[in-house]
Amino acid sequence: MPTLALIRHGQSQWNLENRFTGWWDADLTEKGEAEARHAGELLREAGFAPRQAFSSVQTRAIRTLWLALTEMGLVWLPVEKNWRLNERHYGGLTGLDKKETAEKHGDEQVHIWRRSYDTPPPPLEKGSKYDLSGDPRYDGVDVPDTESLKLTLERVLPFWHESIAPVLKSGTDTVIAAHGNSLRALVKHLFEVPDETITGVEIPTGNPLLIELDDNLKPISARYLDASRATELPAIPG
Amino acid sequence: MPTLALIRHGQSQWNLENRFTGWWDADLTEKGEAEARHAGELLREAGFAPRQAFSSVQTRAIRTLWLALTEMGLVWLPVEKNWRLNERHYGGLTGLDKKETAEKHGDEQVHIWRRSYDTPPPPLEKGSKYDLSGDPRYDGVDVPDTESLKLTLERVLPFWHESIAPVLKSGTDTVIAAHGNSLRALVKHLFEVPDETITGVEIPTGNPLLIELDDNLKPISARYLDASRATELPAIPG
Repeated sequence: MPTLALIRHGQSQWNLENRFTGWWDADLTEKGEAEARHAGELLREAGFAPRQAFSSVQTRAIRTLWLALTEMGLVWLPVEKNWRLNERHYGGLTGLDKKETAEKHGDEQVHIWRRSYDTPPPPLEKGSKYDLSGDPRYDGVDVPDTESLKLTLERVLPFWHESIAPVLKSGTDTVIAAHGNSLRALVKHLFEVPDETITGVEIPTGNPLLIELDDNLKPISARYLDASRATELPAIPG
Repeated sequence: MPTLALIRHGQSQWNLENRFTGWWDADLTEKGEAEARHAGELLREAGFAPRQAFSSVQTRAIRTLWLALTEMGLVWLPVEKNWRLNERHYGGLTGLDKKETAEKHGDEQVHIWRRSYDTPPPPLEKGSKYDLSGDPRYDGVDVPDTESLKLTLERVLPFWHESIAPVLKSGTDTVIAAHGNSLRALVKHLFEVPDETITGVEIPTGNPLLIELDDNLKPISARYLDASRATELPAIPG
Protein backbone atom coordinates (compact mmCIF):
# COMPACT_ATOMS: atom_id res chain seq x y z
CA MET A 1 0.00 0.00 0.00
CA PRO A 2 1.47 3.34 -1.05
CA THR A 3 1.94 6.38 1.16
CA LEU A 4 1.61 9.92 -0.14
CA ALA A 5 3.09 12.98 1.57
CA LEU A 6 1.78 16.45 0.76
CA ILE A 7 3.93 19.46 1.62
CA ARG A 8 2.54 22.98 1.35
CA HIS A 9 5.35 25.48 0.77
CA GLY A 10 6.21 27.90 3.54
CA GLN A 11 6.33 31.67 3.64
CA SER A 12 7.10 33.48 0.39
CA GLN A 13 8.06 37.13 -0.01
CA TRP A 14 4.50 37.93 -1.09
CA ASN A 15 2.94 35.96 1.77
CA LEU A 16 5.04 38.19 4.02
CA GLU A 17 3.76 41.30 2.23
CA ASN A 18 0.18 39.96 2.36
CA ARG A 19 -0.26 40.14 -1.41
CA PHE A 20 -2.32 37.80 -3.59
CA THR A 21 0.30 35.66 -5.31
CA GLY A 22 -1.31 32.86 -7.34
CA TRP A 23 0.87 32.12 -10.36
CA TRP A 24 3.32 34.95 -9.66
CA ASP A 25 6.70 33.39 -8.94
CA ALA A 26 7.47 34.86 -5.51
CA ASP A 27 10.40 33.07 -3.87
CA LEU A 28 10.60 31.72 -0.32
CA THR A 29 11.71 33.99 2.51
CA GLU A 30 14.31 32.74 5.00
CA LYS A 31 11.41 31.70 7.22
CA GLY A 32 9.92 29.76 4.29
CA GLU A 33 13.24 28.01 3.72
CA ALA A 34 13.38 27.02 7.38
CA GLU A 35 9.81 25.66 7.14
CA ALA A 36 10.86 23.54 4.16
CA ARG A 37 13.88 22.11 5.96
CA HIS A 38 11.69 21.38 8.98
CA ALA A 39 9.21 19.51 6.78
CA GLY A 40 12.11 17.38 5.52
CA GLU A 41 13.26 16.67 9.08
CA LEU A 42 9.74 15.59 10.07
CA LEU A 43 9.51 13.24 7.08
CA ARG A 44 12.93 11.77 7.79
CA GLU A 45 12.12 11.27 11.48
CA ALA A 46 8.86 9.57 10.46
CA GLY A 47 10.93 7.07 8.45
CA PHE A 48 9.21 8.12 5.24
CA ALA A 49 11.33 7.11 2.22
CA PRO A 50 9.60 8.18 -1.00
CA ARG A 51 10.93 7.07 -4.36
CA GLN A 52 9.26 9.72 -6.55
CA ALA A 53 8.59 13.43 -6.10
CA PHE A 54 6.34 15.94 -7.82
CA SER A 55 6.07 19.71 -7.65
CA SER A 56 4.52 22.64 -9.46
CA VAL A 57 6.75 24.75 -11.75
CA GLN A 58 6.76 27.59 -9.21
CA THR A 59 10.03 28.43 -7.48
CA ARG A 60 8.60 28.42 -3.95
CA ALA A 61 7.30 24.84 -4.28
CA ILE A 62 10.37 23.55 -6.14
CA ARG A 63 12.76 25.02 -3.58
CA THR A 64 10.59 23.68 -0.75
CA LEU A 65 10.95 20.22 -2.27
CA TRP A 66 14.71 20.62 -2.78
CA LEU A 67 15.28 21.77 0.79
CA ALA A 68 13.11 18.96 2.20
CA LEU A 69 14.84 16.32 0.04
CA THR A 70 18.23 17.65 1.15
CA GLU A 71 17.22 17.10 4.80
CA MET A 72 16.00 13.63 3.90
CA GLY A 73 19.24 12.66 2.09
CA LEU A 74 17.14 12.13 -1.04
CA VAL A 75 18.28 14.77 -3.51
CA TRP A 76 18.66 11.96 -6.08
CA LEU A 77 14.90 11.23 -6.24
CA PRO A 78 13.29 11.65 -9.64
CA VAL A 79 11.28 14.88 -9.60
CA GLU A 80 8.54 15.72 -12.07
CA LYS A 81 7.46 19.36 -12.22
CA ASN A 82 4.16 20.30 -13.80
CA TRP A 83 2.19 23.55 -14.06
CA ARG A 84 -0.99 21.66 -13.16
CA LEU A 85 0.21 21.63 -9.53
CA ASN A 86 0.54 25.45 -9.53
CA GLU A 87 -1.30 27.62 -7.04
CA ARG A 88 -4.77 28.84 -7.97
CA HIS A 89 -4.53 31.83 -10.33
CA TYR A 90 -5.89 34.87 -8.49
CA GLY A 91 -6.67 36.82 -11.66
CA GLY A 92 -6.96 40.58 -11.23
CA LEU A 93 -6.20 40.30 -7.52
CA THR A 94 -2.61 39.22 -8.29
CA GLY A 95 -0.14 41.63 -6.71
CA LEU A 96 -2.72 43.48 -4.58
CA ASP A 97 -2.19 43.53 -0.82
CA LYS A 98 -4.99 43.10 1.67
CA LYS A 99 -5.57 46.84 2.06
CA GLU A 100 -5.55 47.58 -1.68
CA THR A 101 -7.92 44.70 -2.34
CA ALA A 102 -10.39 45.80 0.31
CA GLU A 103 -10.30 49.39 -0.98
CA LYS A 104 -10.87 48.30 -4.57
CA HIS A 105 -13.44 45.53 -4.09
CA GLY A 106 -14.73 45.63 -0.48
CA ASP A 107 -14.10 43.04 2.22
CA GLU A 108 -17.24 41.05 1.55
CA GLN A 109 -16.51 40.51 -2.13
CA VAL A 110 -12.93 39.50 -1.34
CA HIS A 111 -14.20 37.00 1.20
CA ILE A 112 -16.43 35.46 -1.49
CA TRP A 113 -13.53 35.11 -3.93
CA ARG A 114 -11.36 33.52 -1.26
CA ARG A 115 -13.95 31.15 0.13
CA SER A 116 -16.34 30.32 -2.69
CA TYR A 117 -15.72 27.05 -4.50
CA ASP A 118 -16.64 28.21 -7.97
CA THR A 119 -16.49 32.03 -8.16
CA PRO A 120 -13.27 33.19 -9.82
CA PRO A 121 -11.94 36.70 -9.17
CA PRO A 122 -12.04 39.16 -12.11
CA PRO A 123 -9.56 38.19 -14.83
CA LEU A 124 -6.03 39.56 -14.94
CA GLU A 125 -5.81 42.23 -17.63
CA LYS A 126 -3.90 41.25 -20.78
CA GLY A 127 -0.52 42.92 -20.75
CA SER A 128 -0.59 43.36 -16.97
CA LYS A 129 2.89 43.15 -15.48
CA TYR A 130 1.62 40.00 -13.78
CA ASP A 131 0.62 38.35 -17.08
CA LEU A 132 2.79 35.23 -17.38
CA SER A 133 1.56 33.99 -20.75
CA GLY A 134 4.95 34.89 -22.29
CA ASP A 135 6.98 33.06 -19.65
CA PRO A 136 8.92 30.22 -21.33
CA ARG A 137 8.03 27.83 -18.51
CA TYR A 138 4.45 27.99 -19.84
CA ASP A 139 5.31 27.33 -23.49
CA GLY A 140 2.42 25.30 -24.87
CA VAL A 141 0.24 25.97 -21.80
CA ASP A 142 -2.99 27.95 -22.04
CA VAL A 143 -2.21 30.22 -19.08
CA PRO A 144 -5.46 31.06 -17.26
CA ASP A 145 -6.35 34.66 -16.45
CA THR A 146 -8.21 33.72 -13.28
CA GLU A 147 -9.30 30.57 -11.45
CA SER A 148 -11.80 29.46 -8.85
CA LEU A 149 -10.92 26.47 -6.67
CA LYS A 150 -13.19 24.44 -8.98
CA LEU A 151 -11.18 25.46 -12.05
CA THR A 152 -7.98 24.70 -10.14
CA LEU A 153 -9.21 21.21 -9.33
CA GLU A 154 -10.23 20.64 -12.94
CA ARG A 155 -6.67 21.25 -14.15
CA VAL A 156 -4.97 19.45 -11.24
CA LEU A 157 -6.89 16.19 -11.65
CA PRO A 158 -5.68 15.25 -15.16
CA PHE A 159 -2.10 15.34 -13.84
CA TRP A 160 -3.11 13.29 -10.83
CA HIS A 161 -4.73 10.62 -13.01
CA GLU A 162 -2.09 10.55 -15.74
CA SER A 163 1.13 10.94 -13.77
CA ILE A 164 0.80 10.65 -10.00
CA ALA A 165 -1.82 7.91 -9.58
CA PRO A 166 0.05 5.37 -11.78
CA VAL A 167 3.20 5.84 -9.68
CA LEU A 168 1.25 5.29 -6.45
CA LYS A 169 -0.60 2.31 -7.91
CA SER A 170 2.77 0.70 -8.62
CA GLY A 171 3.33 0.83 -4.84
CA THR A 172 5.80 3.73 -4.92
CA ASP A 173 5.75 6.10 -1.95
CA THR A 174 5.51 9.64 -3.25
CA VAL A 175 5.96 13.22 -2.07
CA ILE A 176 4.27 16.27 -3.59
CA ALA A 177 5.38 19.84 -2.84
CA ALA A 178 2.78 22.35 -3.93
CA HIS A 179 0.39 25.10 -2.86
CA GLY A 180 -2.59 25.77 -0.62
CA ASN A 181 -5.18 25.38 -3.34
CA SER A 182 -3.62 22.72 -5.58
CA LEU A 183 -3.18 20.54 -2.48
CA ARG A 184 -6.72 21.39 -1.36
CA ALA A 185 -7.91 20.14 -4.75
CA LEU A 186 -6.09 16.84 -4.23
CA VAL A 187 -7.51 16.50 -0.71
CA LYS A 188 -11.00 17.20 -2.06
CA HIS A 189 -10.57 14.44 -4.61
CA LEU A 190 -9.02 11.87 -2.24
CA PHE A 191 -11.37 12.47 0.71
CA GLU A 192 -14.44 13.18 -1.43
CA VAL A 193 -15.01 16.50 0.32
CA PRO A 194 -18.23 18.28 -0.78
CA ASP A 195 -17.99 21.57 -2.71
CA GLU A 196 -19.62 23.38 0.22
CA THR A 197 -16.99 22.52 2.83
CA ILE A 198 -13.70 22.19 0.93
CA THR A 199 -12.68 25.83 1.24
CA GLY A 200 -12.76 25.38 5.02
CA VAL A 201 -9.99 22.75 4.79
CA GLU A 202 -6.74 24.58 5.55
CA ILE A 203 -3.47 22.69 5.08
CA PRO A 204 -0.76 24.21 7.30
CA THR A 205 2.51 25.28 5.63
CA GLY A 206 5.61 23.13 6.12
CA ASN A 207 3.65 20.45 8.01
CA PRO A 208 3.69 17.26 5.92
CA LEU A 209 0.35 15.49 5.54
CA LEU A 210 1.01 11.75 5.37
CA ILE A 211 -1.78 9.76 3.72
CA GLU A 212 -1.79 5.97 3.58
CA LEU A 213 -3.71 4.76 0.56
CA ASP A 214 -5.17 1.41 -0.41
CA ASP A 215 -4.48 -0.13 -3.80
CA ASN A 216 -7.35 1.85 -5.30
CA LEU A 217 -5.86 5.03 -3.83
CA LYS A 218 -8.60 5.44 -1.23
CA PRO A 219 -7.27 6.93 2.02
CA ILE A 220 -6.87 4.52 4.92
CA SER A 221 -5.33 6.95 7.36
CA ALA A 222 -4.08 10.53 7.35
CA ARG A 223 -2.07 12.58 9.81
CA TYR A 224 0.01 15.74 10.01
CA LEU A 225 3.56 15.08 11.16
CA ASP A 226 3.62 18.16 13.40
CA ALA A 227 0.61 17.43 15.60
CA SER A 228 0.97 20.74 17.44
CA ARG A 229 0.22 22.62 14.21
CA ALA A 230 -2.38 20.24 12.80
CA THR A 231 -5.70 21.46 11.44
CA GLU A 232 -8.88 19.42 11.19
CA LEU A 233 -8.72 16.78 8.48
CA PRO A 234 -11.71 15.61 6.43
CA ALA A 235 -13.14 12.26 7.50
CA ILE A 236 -11.82 9.12 5.82
CA PRO A 237 -14.46 8.31 3.18
CA GLY A 238 -16.49 5.21 4.08
CA MET B 1 21.46 24.41 -33.93
CA PRO B 2 21.53 23.32 -30.30
CA THR B 3 23.97 24.46 -27.63
CA LEU B 4 25.17 22.20 -24.85
CA ALA B 5 26.68 23.43 -21.59
CA LEU B 6 28.78 21.09 -19.45
CA ILE B 7 29.34 21.97 -15.79
CA ARG B 8 31.83 20.05 -13.68
CA HIS B 9 30.87 20.23 -10.01
CA GLY B 10 33.09 22.19 -7.68
CA GLN B 11 34.90 21.23 -4.51
CA SER B 12 33.43 18.42 -2.43
CA GLN B 13 34.37 17.49 1.12
CA TRP B 14 36.48 14.62 -0.19
CA ASN B 15 38.19 16.78 -2.83
CA LEU B 16 39.19 18.99 0.08
CA GLU B 17 40.52 15.98 1.99
CA ASN B 18 42.29 14.71 -1.13
CA ARG B 19 40.50 11.36 -1.07
CA PHE B 20 39.46 9.25 -4.05
CA THR B 21 35.72 9.75 -4.22
CA GLY B 22 34.26 8.13 -7.34
CA TRP B 23 30.73 6.94 -6.56
CA TRP B 24 30.90 7.90 -2.88
CA ASP B 25 28.32 10.61 -2.25
CA ALA B 26 30.50 13.38 -0.81
CA ASP B 27 28.62 16.69 -0.68
CA LEU B 28 29.86 20.08 -1.85
CA THR B 29 31.87 22.29 0.51
CA GLU B 30 30.96 25.97 0.84
CA LYS B 31 33.62 26.67 -1.77
CA GLY B 32 31.99 24.10 -4.07
CA GLU B 33 28.61 25.78 -3.57
CA ALA B 34 30.14 29.14 -4.49
CA GLU B 35 31.66 27.58 -7.63
CA ALA B 36 28.22 26.27 -8.62
CA ARG B 37 26.58 29.66 -8.16
CA HIS B 38 29.38 31.28 -10.15
CA ALA B 39 28.83 28.80 -12.99
CA GLY B 40 25.16 29.82 -13.03
CA GLU B 41 26.10 33.51 -13.14
CA LEU B 42 28.44 32.91 -16.08
CA LEU B 43 25.74 31.03 -17.98
CA ARG B 44 23.17 33.73 -17.27
CA GLU B 45 25.57 36.50 -18.33
CA ALA B 46 26.30 34.56 -21.53
CA GLY B 47 22.57 34.67 -22.30
CA PHE B 48 22.36 30.87 -22.26
CA ALA B 49 18.76 29.74 -21.74
CA PRO B 50 18.58 25.93 -21.67
CA ARG B 51 15.23 24.16 -21.67
CA GLN B 52 16.38 20.77 -20.35
CA ALA B 53 18.91 19.72 -17.71
CA PHE B 54 20.64 16.46 -16.84
CA SER B 55 22.77 15.36 -13.92
CA SER B 56 24.19 12.26 -12.30
CA VAL B 57 22.46 10.86 -9.20
CA GLN B 58 25.28 12.11 -6.98
CA THR B 59 24.56 14.90 -4.52
CA ARG B 60 27.51 17.10 -5.53
CA ALA B 61 26.40 17.23 -9.18
CA ILE B 62 22.69 17.60 -8.39
CA ARG B 63 23.32 20.45 -5.96
CA THR B 64 25.68 22.10 -8.43
CA LEU B 65 22.88 22.03 -10.97
CA TRP B 66 20.31 23.35 -8.48
CA LEU B 67 22.54 26.22 -7.39
CA ALA B 68 23.39 27.13 -10.99
CA LEU B 69 19.72 26.98 -12.08
CA THR B 70 18.79 29.17 -9.12
CA GLU B 71 21.26 31.84 -10.29
CA MET B 72 19.85 31.51 -13.81
CA GLY B 73 16.21 31.90 -12.67
CA LEU B 74 15.52 28.46 -14.16
CA VAL B 75 14.67 26.22 -11.22
CA TRP B 76 11.58 25.13 -13.16
CA LEU B 77 13.58 23.36 -15.91
CA PRO B 78 12.91 19.65 -16.31
CA VAL B 79 15.85 17.75 -14.81
CA GLU B 80 16.64 14.13 -15.57
CA LYS B 81 19.07 12.40 -13.19
CA ASN B 82 20.81 9.21 -14.22
CA TRP B 83 23.53 7.06 -12.67
CA ARG B 84 25.23 6.80 -16.08
CA LEU B 85 26.49 10.37 -15.60
CA ASN B 86 28.14 9.43 -12.28
CA GLU B 87 31.85 9.93 -11.65
CA ARG B 88 34.20 7.08 -12.58
CA HIS B 89 34.16 4.39 -9.87
CA TYR B 90 37.60 4.33 -8.24
CA GLY B 91 37.24 0.78 -6.92
CA GLY B 92 39.52 -0.11 -4.02
CA LEU B 93 40.99 3.38 -3.99
CA THR B 94 37.67 4.83 -2.81
CA GLY B 95 38.11 6.63 0.49
CA LEU B 96 41.94 6.59 0.46
CA ASP B 97 43.77 9.90 0.61
CA LYS B 98 46.84 10.69 -1.45
CA LYS B 99 49.27 9.61 1.27
CA GLU B 100 47.46 6.34 2.07
CA THR B 101 47.25 5.47 -1.61
CA ALA B 102 50.94 6.11 -2.23
CA GLU B 103 51.88 4.03 0.82
CA LYS B 104 49.67 1.16 -0.24
CA HIS B 105 50.30 1.10 -3.99
CA GLY B 106 53.26 3.38 -4.83
CA ASP B 107 53.13 6.67 -6.71
CA GLU B 108 53.83 5.18 -10.11
CA GLN B 109 50.98 2.65 -9.97
CA VAL B 110 48.57 5.36 -8.79
CA HIS B 111 49.63 7.56 -11.69
CA ILE B 112 48.81 4.71 -14.09
CA TRP B 113 45.34 4.24 -12.59
CA ARG B 114 44.65 7.97 -12.81
CA ARG B 115 46.00 8.53 -16.30
CA SER B 116 45.58 5.27 -18.21
CA TYR B 117 42.51 5.05 -20.44
CA ASP B 118 41.70 1.42 -19.85
CA THR B 119 43.37 0.22 -16.62
CA PRO B 120 40.87 0.10 -13.76
CA PRO B 121 42.08 0.26 -10.14
CA PRO B 122 41.65 -2.92 -8.03
CA PRO B 123 37.99 -3.65 -7.31
CA LEU B 124 36.28 -2.39 -4.18
CA GLU B 125 35.89 -5.26 -1.71
CA LYS B 126 32.36 -6.61 -1.27
CA GLY B 127 30.98 -5.42 2.05
CA SER B 128 33.40 -2.49 2.18
CA LYS B 129 31.87 0.51 3.89
CA TYR B 130 32.12 2.22 0.51
CA ASP B 131 30.10 -0.50 -1.25
CA LEU B 132 26.97 1.23 -2.58
CA SER B 133 25.27 -1.78 -4.12
CA GLY B 134 22.58 -1.63 -1.38
CA ASP B 135 21.86 2.08 -1.87
CA PRO B 136 18.23 2.49 -3.02
CA ARG B 137 19.26 5.05 -5.62
CA TYR B 138 20.92 2.15 -7.45
CA ASP B 139 17.95 -0.22 -7.35
CA GLY B 140 18.07 -2.19 -10.58
CA VAL B 141 21.58 -0.95 -11.42
CA ASP B 142 24.54 -3.33 -11.62
CA VAL B 143 26.83 -1.17 -9.46
CA PRO B 144 30.43 -1.53 -10.70
CA ASP B 145 33.24 -2.36 -8.28
CA THR B 146 35.82 -0.39 -10.29
CA GLU B 147 36.04 1.51 -13.57
CA SER B 148 38.62 2.72 -16.04
CA LEU B 149 37.81 5.81 -18.09
CA LYS B 150 37.02 3.40 -20.93
CA LEU B 151 34.42 1.58 -18.80
CA THR B 152 33.04 4.94 -17.70
CA LEU B 153 32.60 6.02 -21.32
CA GLU B 154 30.92 2.72 -22.18
CA ARG B 155 28.18 3.32 -19.59
CA VAL B 156 27.86 7.06 -20.26
CA LEU B 157 27.27 6.73 -24.00
CA PRO B 158 24.01 4.73 -23.91
CA PHE B 159 22.45 7.56 -21.85
CA TRP B 160 23.85 10.13 -24.26
CA HIS B 161 22.36 8.33 -27.26
CA GLU B 162 19.01 7.41 -25.69
CA SER B 163 18.21 10.50 -23.63
CA ILE B 164 20.45 13.51 -24.24
CA ALA B 165 21.06 13.36 -28.00
CA PRO B 166 17.34 13.23 -28.92
CA VAL B 167 16.70 16.37 -26.84
CA LEU B 168 19.56 18.22 -28.54
CA LYS B 169 18.47 16.98 -31.98
CA SER B 170 15.06 18.53 -31.35
CA GLY B 171 16.90 21.87 -31.10
CA THR B 172 16.67 22.17 -27.32
CA ASP B 173 19.55 23.89 -25.53
CA THR B 174 20.69 21.66 -22.70
CA VAL B 175 22.84 21.80 -19.57
CA ILE B 176 24.57 18.82 -17.96
CA ALA B 177 26.04 18.92 -14.45
CA ALA B 178 28.36 16.02 -13.80
CA HIS B 179 31.90 14.93 -12.96
CA GLY B 180 35.47 15.10 -14.23
CA ASN B 181 35.39 11.70 -15.88
CA SER B 182 31.80 11.40 -17.07
CA LEU B 183 32.22 14.80 -18.76
CA ARG B 184 35.60 13.73 -20.13
CA ALA B 185 33.83 10.72 -21.66
CA LEU B 186 31.31 13.02 -23.36
CA VAL B 187 34.09 15.29 -24.62
CA LYS B 188 35.97 12.26 -25.97
CA HIS B 189 32.86 11.20 -27.87
CA LEU B 190 31.94 14.65 -29.21
CA PHE B 191 35.46 15.73 -30.19
CA GLU B 192 36.63 12.26 -31.27
CA VAL B 193 39.62 12.44 -28.95
CA PRO B 194 42.00 9.44 -29.25
CA ASP B 195 42.34 7.02 -26.32
CA GLU B 196 45.98 8.09 -25.90
CA THR B 197 45.29 11.77 -25.24
CA ILE B 198 41.89 11.94 -23.54
CA THR B 199 43.16 11.63 -19.97
CA GLY B 200 45.17 14.81 -20.60
CA VAL B 201 41.93 16.75 -21.16
CA GLU B 202 41.13 18.44 -17.85
CA ILE B 203 37.77 20.22 -17.52
CA PRO B 204 38.01 22.93 -14.84
CA THR B 205 35.43 22.87 -12.01
CA GLY B 206 32.62 25.43 -12.06
CA ASN B 207 33.66 26.79 -15.45
CA PRO B 208 30.88 26.03 -17.95
CA LEU B 209 32.00 24.60 -21.27
CA LEU B 210 29.62 25.89 -23.97
CA ILE B 211 29.54 23.75 -27.11
CA GLU B 212 27.61 24.73 -30.23
CA LEU B 213 26.56 21.66 -32.17
CA ASP B 214 25.32 21.13 -35.69
CA ASP B 215 22.19 19.14 -36.42
CA ASN B 216 24.19 15.91 -36.34
CA LEU B 217 25.61 16.92 -32.95
CA LYS B 218 29.10 17.56 -34.30
CA PRO B 219 30.80 20.46 -32.47
CA ILE B 220 31.00 23.75 -34.38
CA SER B 221 32.58 25.78 -31.60
CA ALA B 222 33.49 25.35 -27.95
CA ARG B 223 34.60 27.75 -25.24
CA TYR B 224 34.89 28.00 -21.49
CA LEU B 225 32.90 30.89 -20.07
CA ASP B 226 35.64 31.86 -17.61
CA ALA B 227 38.51 32.40 -20.05
CA SER B 228 40.93 33.12 -17.21
CA ARG B 229 40.53 29.56 -15.95
CA ALA B 230 40.25 27.80 -19.31
CA THR B 231 42.27 24.69 -20.13
CA GLU B 232 43.23 23.53 -23.60
CA LEU B 233 40.28 22.15 -25.54
CA PRO B 234 40.48 19.34 -28.08
CA ALA B 235 40.39 20.49 -31.71
CA ILE B 236 37.03 20.69 -33.46
CA PRO B 237 36.85 17.47 -35.50
CA GLY B 238 37.20 18.12 -39.24
